[in-house]
Formats: sequence, structure tokens, C-alpha cells
Amino acid sequence: MSDHLLLSCPDRPGIVAAVTGFLAAREFNIVELDQYSESGELVMRVAFDHEGSHEHIEDAFAEEVGKPLDAKWRIEHADRMRKVVLMASREDHCLHDILSRASRKEILAEVTAVISNHPDAAALAESHQVPFHHLAVGKETKASAEKAALDLMRADPPELVILARYMQILSPEFLAGIEEIGAAVINIHHSFLPAFAGGDPYRRAYERGVKMIGATAHYVTEELDAGPIIDQGTAAVTHRDAVEDLVAIGRDLERVVLARAVGAHLADRVFTIGGRTIVF
Amino acid sequence: MSDHLLLSCPDRPGIVAAVTGFLAAREFNIVELDQYSESGELVMRVAFDHEGSHEHIEDAFAEEVGKPLDAKWRIEHADRMRKVVLMASREDHCLHDILSRASRKEILAEVTAVISNHPDAAALAESHQVPFHHLAVGKETKASAEKAALDLMRADPPELVILARYMQILSPEFLAGIEEIGAAVINIHHSFLPAFAGGDPYRRAYERGVKMIGATAHYVTEELDAGPIIDQGTAAVTHRDAVEDLVAIGRDLERVVLARAVGAHLADRVFTIGGRTIVF
Amino acid sequence: MSDHLLLSCPDRPGIVAAVTGFLAAREFNIVELDQYSESGELVMRVAFDHEGSHEHIEDAFAEEVGKPLDAKWRIEHADRMRKVVLMASREDHCLHDILSRASRKEILAEVTAVISNHPDAAALAESHQVPFHHLAVGKETKASAEKAALDLMRADPPELVILARYMQILSPEFLAGIEEIGAAVINIHHSFLPAFAGGDPYRRAYERGVKMIGATAHYVTEELDAGPIIDQGTAAVTHRDAVEDLVAIGRDLERVVLARAVGAHLADRVFTIGGRTIVF
Amino acid sequence: MSDHLLLSCPDRPGIVAAVTGFLAAREFNIVELDQYSESGELVMRVAFDHEGSHEHIEDAFAEEVGKPLDAKWRIEHADRMRKVVLMASREDHCLHDILSRASRKEILAEVTAVISNHPDAAALAESHQVPFHHLAVGKETKASAEKAALDLMRADPPELVILARYMQILSPEFLAGIEEIGAAVINIHHSFLPAFAGGDPYRRAYERGVKMIGATAHYVTEELDAGPIIDQGTAAVTHRDAVEDLVAIGRDLERVVLARAVGAHLADRVFTIGGRTIVF
Repeated sequence: MSDHLLLSCPDRPGIVAAVTGFLAAREFNIVELDQYSESGELVMRVAFDHEGSHEHIEDAFAEEVGKPLDAKWRIEHADRMRKVVLMASREDHCLHDILSRASRKEILAEVTAVISNHPDAAALAESHQVPFHHLAVGKETKASAEKAALDLMRADPPELVILARYMQILSPEFLAGIEEIGAAVINIHHSFLPAFAGGDPYRRAYERGVKMIGATAHYVTEELDAGPIIDQGTAAVTHRDAVEDLVAIGRDLERVVLARAVGAHLADRVFTIGGRTIVF
Repeated sequence: MSDHLLLSCPDRPGIVAAVTGFLAAREFNIVELDQYSESGELVMRVAFDHEGSHEHIEDAFAEEVGKPLDAKWRIEHADRMRKVVLMASREDHCLHDILSRASRKEILAEVTAVISNHPDAAALAESHQVPFHHLAVGKETKASAEKAALDLMRADPPELVILARYMQILSPEFLAGIEEIGAAVINIHHSFLPAFAGGDPYRRAYERGVKMIGATAHYVTEELDAGPIIDQGTAAVTHRDAVEDLVAIGRDLERVVLARAVGAHLADRVFTIGGRTIVF
Repeated sequence: MSDHLLLSCPDRPGIVAAVTGFLAAREFNIVELDQYSESGELVMRVAFDHEGSHEHIEDAFAEEVGKPLDAKWRIEHADRMRKVVLMASREDHCLHDILSRASRKEILAEVTAVISNHPDAAALAESHQVPFHHLAVGKETKASAEKAALDLMRADPPELVILARYMQILSPEFLAGIEEIGAAVINIHHSFLPAFAGGDPYRRAYERGVKMIGATAHYVTEELDAGPIIDQGTAAVTHRDAVEDLVAIGRDLERVVLARAVGAHLADRVFTIGGRTIVF
Repeated sequence: MSDHLLLSCPDRPGIVAAVTGFLAAREFNIVELDQYSESGELVMRVAFDHEGSHEHIEDAFAEEVGKPLDAKWRIEHADRMRKVVLMASREDHCLHDILSRASRKEILAEVTAVISNHPDAAALAESHQVPFHHLAVGKETKASAEKAALDLMRADPPELVILARYMQILSPEFLAGIEEIGAAVINIHHSFLPAFAGGDPYRRAYERGVKMIGATAHYVTEELDAGPIIDQGTAAVTHRDAVEDLVAIGRDLERVVLARAVGAHLADRVFTIGGRTIVF
């Protein structure tokens, strides 16, 4: 079986030795080991092959390694599927893309719902056998739409919420509700953050006359477009590219950058220390 | 002989026809033709092969095309060397690079002076047979240093001033003086503008946790780091890269992006319309 | 209305003047003009805005420009949809992608059929309302499968056939049949051609220990993987990437590179001179 | 002090535990740890901070870790300068670049000699205070030139020989001689290997009509252009780029790719297993 251990703890000499010593004592074979420390905190991901189920070693690991190191840790099966909710809007290229990757099993995602403030994607979701929920968002309906979305998530809790070009700003209450459920939120921003944070980035990129555009996948935090960056991509553009050309070129960046970030998150490769991500 | 015509004028139907008709009537062969219009202005670059010297056709062109189109235009020999002044500071990798390209004739530059606020690059300039001028810049010496630099430029006017990681902000007076001489000013900024405009961009990029860094070559205008962008480049970085790693990775971006921008400028491939560059 | 003129003819001075003079005389506004010549042949694409329909000017253009220049030419409406047939196999990520782009109208394609040697993509094609044809290909069935595919194409002739990771080599007879119909054929090869032409390129790339992998979209000719290249892309890989990781990274290259090539072809931006493409 | 341990040994469970346990027992702090195994062989690089000199622990490491694991290993000071010989030819842009980086201390190289089959670079080498040796290579002088080069290297043995666009094929005898001295040999090939291995790659790339060109830095082995690849880079080109444009664009790739490979090698980040490099 192939599993991976995820661990974070206060940094001090001997952590890698303690973890790898534990695995070596059981003759488990390390397939991949990454560790990184910053600001006094160490994070670590160890993939290992072994016979039987890892559940048998969890008590021993807690006793021998977890407690002495004052660590937060868990062991995951390498191929466990994670429940994911997709939120989208009219621009549905990322929705198409993530649904296609999930149905092709390119990512470890079981999409349990598509929530959109536009009705257009209903047929798309259906064709992937995913329940579709149209929740219109206007000045007066935003709070109730968010509440309805949260109720949906509480009924079948996802581990990840993906904002696949969901063009609404989430309220702090909504974010808090999702956090309570225990889900992370990943957004794709259609610029090379921190350039052009906020709205209408392609128009602003055009006006500034940049020669490259970008896309940024990041965790969503209360501060708009300021959450930890997971992945970024850029593409060259020229003076000949009008705003709509930037939009078209940008779509391919958005698809790929979001997919890479989601893939890394679902494979438990992303840690966060002090607002920066560690992507193993 | 290979020459190129550079032309800008108010946009209206028939401009390309007028210019190419003029050349066709003389059986000149068009090698390359680029045109672009925006906001009612058209810019055009036509490279053409012909026998004899283009000076013979300038009067006819003025009469038949230039005046009717109300155009600004000039014809350049393809291989005319341009006088260039380099301004640098302690970080001298771009200075190394531009001097090396000039001496290898990769760019059409005759470097007439290196001006630096640090004495370190004297030997480097000398090894390229380029006069070196150390002009220390402090709170009290900035004005006199800029005046001395201007005097140097007035004595042997360059067509281009390159800020090769010259870490000083130029005063409006200094910029006005250079403009009077008729030289353009190109700067290399060590970030993907408009992200991290201003000082210490690598540190700020590290703190923001970006996954790509960039470099931007742009014309210098009065507003800091806001001039028309000529070229940009980006490179992937990871959480493992400390600030000094970003600096090292960034050096290669800076070298290449500045050299590309300078090369395009010296080949008369860069036009500006409304704060955006057209790079043919 | 926005149209574009496509023209190729023997190169000589005056061609651009003749074409643009014709348009100028009618006060048509040139939006974009590209021309390129090589080996004595000139190709040209001019996009122009005008009132009314371009059909009215075709006779005059033939008389005044086409015949004197001995040119092949046509004028196209900028937004005319083209009939496209998709051929796919078990690896269906490019099929997903092209169908998604067609249904989102990112490309000017009306997909009239999906032909596959595997039955798996039936539901996918159906969800896009595209007829699906399963034509099994074995040693003994290849000729009959190709014949059946040709019959389908003859019944509703496409302008483009896209091999979306169709893993079969087309017979010369099949290619000749498609050519007779008048359709171009674009293939996506999962390597940076000419490296690793032929089969199993990711395994061979792994074994060679390359640090970048690529994908290549090209027109199909009789010689395997040797047709004119339309677009290429590359991505960095490391020693940690096993063959299946290269496959996964490569999928994103293949999707994007194939889509860009198809988009350029359908927008009439691709010409061919002597085995090399000109992509305007 | 900052040092790093380099180790390779037959793979089996417990190696990481043994190494990190040794360091932990001495309270040495691991700064960076990379390990990789393939085909039954494990390679590992551990950077660690400690007080005093690592020489004091070498006997204990040999006894407690090296012998039991049947490992080849060494510990290096992080900032030890390595003697390097540069071999160049008429195309001297990589020579400029490596000399500039060495004199700026961007790489851990003390260049002890420049050997060229053209006399042109003498002044360049001199300006960097590096002895220059012109060894003409013709049909009849190749053997004696290689002998003279070997004699130079034997007199002051380098750890690395860099072929900075040295356009001669090294004889097996010369390579054997360099290996005897204990130096590695890195070459920069001006194509994206394995595409266009051998001579004149830019012309062949042009003729094939590729849309990207590349450069490859690799260790030199007896088989031409077939040694383990250390680094590669690519850049987009278009139909407008003639062979000389590919050459110019390629120069920037060559400079950067060679410099990255040399930098990684000198920092002891490159291992080789079965013809593929591991670059930590």
C-alpha cells in the first residue's frame, strides 16, 4: 500500500531522524520525503510503501513521535477520493475543465455539487451526473444564497470548495461557515497576483500595456485576493492582443493553473506557513 | 541595401496603400511590413531592399506620402550604430551583459560612457575601452552628479540611455535634460510590473509567496516604474527559494529582458501610443 | 462587417500595394495585415472592416488584383463556422477539451462527428449533441474502418479533421480520401518534434532523462510525424517525474497546443510554404 | 558553518534514518535534505549547519553510517571554490558569460585557464586575469592540441571542464585523460536534445519549421550529444525568424542554460544514475 504522512511541528534538530527512524524500524520503504522549515515551524510529507493498513501504526506513531515532537499529523491513503464542491458563474471554462478532470480521474475529486449564480451550467453538470444548484446572487439575495450554499455543504460536507471563476466576493460569514465545515477554499484569479488584484484584471493589464499576463490559484482568506498563492502561470502577449484576446489567452492559463493547484491540494502536497504556501 | 521606414500618422483608410505604392513604383522590395493602429493613430515600420542610398528618395517621399498623410517619418539604414550611455550601480550584471553584447556586436550600440555611482565597474568598462565616470550620489551630491552626467551627455549626445540596474531615482530635471538631448531612457525593473513597483521587489515577492518572479524593461517617465513596458519575462520559483535565490534567478531574467528591449529599441522596432508600446 | 482576404502568389514588388490599393479605393479599413514571403512565394492575410457583404467585390478583385498577380485567393467572413470531425481513441482528454471549446464557441467549429476506435467516449459526445461513431480498428478491420470513416465524411464533408490523440497511423489511401474531400488534418503529437517522433514518446523522454517535455500540433502528411508544425509547447520536468507524471504534465500541453493550432487554422491564420507553416 | 553531505549507496529501508540520526545525535541542524532512489541506487544530499569543522566527524560518519550502508560519500564546505577550465571557440558568448559570472562570484568557480582554437578571446580572458591558451585544431594538429590541453590540465588539475560552445568533438583519448584527472566535462548543445543532435542544429530547426528552439547542457560522454542532460531551456520562435534569428535567440538560451547547469554542478547538486541526472 502507498500512504503518506503529513506532519507539522515546532522546528528543532532530530525531527527527520525521529520520523524516518520510526518508519525504518518497521521496514517501511520511503518513496518520497519532503520537509521544509521556516519561522520556527517544520512541515513534512513522507510517502511510504508498506504491507497492511497504516491504521495499525497510528497509536504507536502518536506515542513515539507525535507527542514528543508536539506535532500535528495525519496519515492518508494515497488514493482516497475527496468530496469537492464547485462554485461557478457565467464564465464556465474552468468548470468544464475541473469536471472533465474529475470524470477522467486525473484529480482525486468526487464532485458532490455545482453551485452557480447563473443557470447556464445545469446541462453541463448533469452530463457529469453532478447535482446542480442555481443560487441567484443579487444585492438582496446574496445572504440567502450563501446560506443555501452553506446548508448544502453541511448536508454533505466537502473537503474542498473550488471557486471556478465564481465572480462573487464571499462574505466573512460564508467563509467562516465553510471553515467550520472543515473545507479549504481555492480561487483562481485571472491575473498574476499581486498585479491587478480586484476586478477586471484583463482590461487593466491591457491598459498598462503588459507583455505577459498571468493567472493565480490561491487559498481564499478574508482579505480579497491576498490569500496564500498555490500556483501561478504566465503567457506572453503583444500589442496586437485586444482585451478579448487577453481573455482568451488567459482562459488557458486559468484552466491549467487552477487544475494544478487543485491537484496538488488534493494530493496533500500543500502546506501553509505564515501566509506562504509550501508545495511539495 | 537594407533600410527601414518608420512612420506614424493619424489613422485613415489608404495609408498602407500609399506607402507601399510609393515603394512599388520604385521597384523596392518589401522585406518586412508591420503596422498597427489604436486610438486614431497609426504606426508603421517597413523594411525594404533597394539599390543605392535611401537619401535620394526622401524628398519625393515627403512630397508624395509624408505631407498628404500628415505623418512623422524617417528612413534609417538597417545597420547604423547608435551612441548609448550606460548608467549602473553596484549590481553590475546587466552592465557586464550589455557591454559584452555591444562588443560582440549583438546590438547596434556604440557605448560612449559608463556612469556609475560606485567605483567598482571602472576596470570592467576599461576592458571594453569605454570611458568610465564615477559620480557618487548622496543626498547632497545628487543634483551635482546629475548635472555632471548631463554635461557628459551634452558633450557627446547619445540616442539611448540605459539604466542597467541604476538604483537611483532620476529627478524630473535630469529626465528633462536627457529628453532635450533627444535620447530615450530604458530601465530594467526587477519585478513583473505592475507587481512590486518601487523598491526591494524580491523581498516583497518572497513575503507575498509568489510562485513566479519577473523582470520588466520599460521607458522611463516621470512617474516611477509607470513608463511604457517594452519587454517582460518570468521564471518559476518555489518555497525553497530564499530572497537571495530570487535575486540570483532574477539576474538572468534582468539580463535577458533588458537586452531584448534594448535590441528592439536600437532596431527601431518600438513605438509608443498612449502609454503602451508597439513592438514590431 | 469584418472579413479577411487570404492570398498567395509568386513574390514580386508591388503585391502589398496592389491589395491595399484595392481596399483603399473602396475606403475599406484595414484592421490587420500580415504578409510573408519565402522561396519566391508570398502569402498574405488582410482583415478589413466594411459595410455590406464582401461578395460584391469579388469579381472586381479577381479582375484588378487576382489575375494580374497570378494569385490564389479567397475572402472569408470572420465568423463563419467550419464543419469539423474529431477522431479519438482511449486517451480522451483532447476530445473533452475540443468539444468543450466548440460548445463554448471558443473556436469556430461545428463538430459534426466523433469517430473513435474505442466505445468509451459515446456518452461524452452525446452530452455535446454530437453523433458518435465507434469504428474498431484491428489488423483486419483497419481498411474497412477507414472506409466507413471516409463514407461518413463524404456524406457531410468537414473542412478539418482533428486527430485528438487518435493513436492509429492513417493509411495513404485514407489521407488521399480526406484530401479529396478538401479537409485538412491536424494531429497532436505528444512530444517536442522532431524529438521522439513515433511511438511511446513519454517513455523514451524519461529514459533519455530530458528536463523538458513538449507537444506538437502539425498537419498530417504521408510521412509519419513529419508534416508542417503549427504549434509547440514545452514544460519543465525533473528526475522525480516518472513516466506517468510526464504523461499527466503532457496532457495539459497537448490540450493547449492542439487547441491553439486548431483555433489558428479555423481563423485562417495558417499558411504552408515548402513544409513550414506561416502562422499569422 | 554550512556544509553538505553527498552520499550514494544501494537502496534499502533505513538510510535516511541512519544519516539523519547521525546528524541529530550531534545536534546538527538540517537545512535542506534531498534523496532519490532508482534502479536500486539511492543518492542523497543533506545540507546542515553546525559549529566547528566537519572534518571532526568524518571518522565517526565512516564508521557509523558509511560502512554499514556500503556508501560512497563525502562532506563539502558549502563555499569551496572549484578550479575550472573553459574551452571555447569563435562563438564566445558563453565564454563571456561564464567569465562574467565567475568574476562576479555568482558561481563557485576559479577559472584557471581559457583554451580556445581561435585566438580572438585572448583579450577577454586577460581582462579577467585568466591565462589564455590558443591551441589551433586542424586535421593534423588535433591530437597535439588535445595533448597540450591535457598537459595544461595535469599541471593544475581542474574539477570541471566547461565546453563553452567549443565546436570540436573530443577524442576518446582526450576524454579518458580528463577523467583520469578527475574532472567532469559539461557541454552546451544548441538544440533541445535529442532533437537536432550533431551539427548545425539551428539550420535544421529552421528547415523543419519548429515553433520553439532549445538548448541543452549535458555531461560529455564518448557518444556524441548523448551524455546525461543536466538542464534544458526553450524559447518560442516564428516563421519570421531566419536562421540567424534562431542563432541570436538561441544565444540567450545557451548562456542561461549552461550557467544554470554549471552552477548546479559546482554546488554539488547533480548526481547521475544510469544515464539520467538527479538535480537537487
